Amino acid sequence: MPKEQFFFNLNDTTGGICRDLAPGLSARIFPGEQAMLSVVTIAPNAEGLLHNHVEEQWGVMLEGSGVRTQGGEEVNVKAGDFWRTPANVPHRFRAGPKGARILDIFSPPREEYRKAGRGFSKE
Amino acid sequence: MPKEQFFFNLNDTTGGICRDLAPGLSARIFPGEQAMLSVVTIAPNAEGLLHNHVEEQWGVMLEGSGVRTQGGEEVNVKAGDFWRTPANVPHRFRAGPKGARILDIFSPPREEYRKAGRGFSKE
Repeated sequence: MPKEQFFFNLNDTTGGICRDLAPGLSARIFPGEQAMLSVVTIAPNAEGLLHNHVEEQWGVMLEGSGVRTQGGEEVNVKAGDFWRTPANVPHRFRAGPKGARILDIFSPPREEYRKAGRGFSKE
Repeated sequence: MPKEQFFFNLNDTTGGICRDLAPGLSARIFPGEQAMLSVVTIAPNAEGLLHNHVEEQWGVMLEGSGVRTQGGEEVNVKAGDFWRTPANVPHRFRAGPKGARILDIFSPPREEYRKAGRGFSKE
């Protein structure tokens, strides 16, 4: 098991597959067989589009603060919070004034995120 | 979507399902449909048993340091490191002198972890 294929670091800005989700939202994506991790850096006050997908998603707030919208509700979140977004539930995130870093977990992996690209979907 | 069913905090020692994995290793487990998160607190120098399972596992080192053994190799890890452990690969973790906190992710969820208990398996 070559170490570099299985061990990573949240702060390594060169690791994983690069995806620009939206202006001010960039992700480094690490695909597995059953789950996919995505380390998302969000600029102050930046926000993503409301979107949904069939994959279950979890988010872990690593740094900063913001507002998580899902299922029509807005929830204030801060570092240490985490949440589950079931399949098909529309969701978005808006960072607070100091920005945010989130670890997203998708299961199963989002196939369209296995290669570098832009946007929240197949674009 | 009742907030308390979908939003959690890594530092909430009463959240999730409690499991004592081994002496000095305790977990709070949060099951989803496709993935399961487990916040594991490990006492200084404590270590788990070498074990394996069919579910894919990811580990994210939240605090502390230690040695991750998987696939016969020992890798020193510290806060910010994360790793993927494919299905059926034997693995264990030994905390460093200040202990450790790890976020484990299982996909699919480990069915035996959906209820409180002890040990790394069905015990």
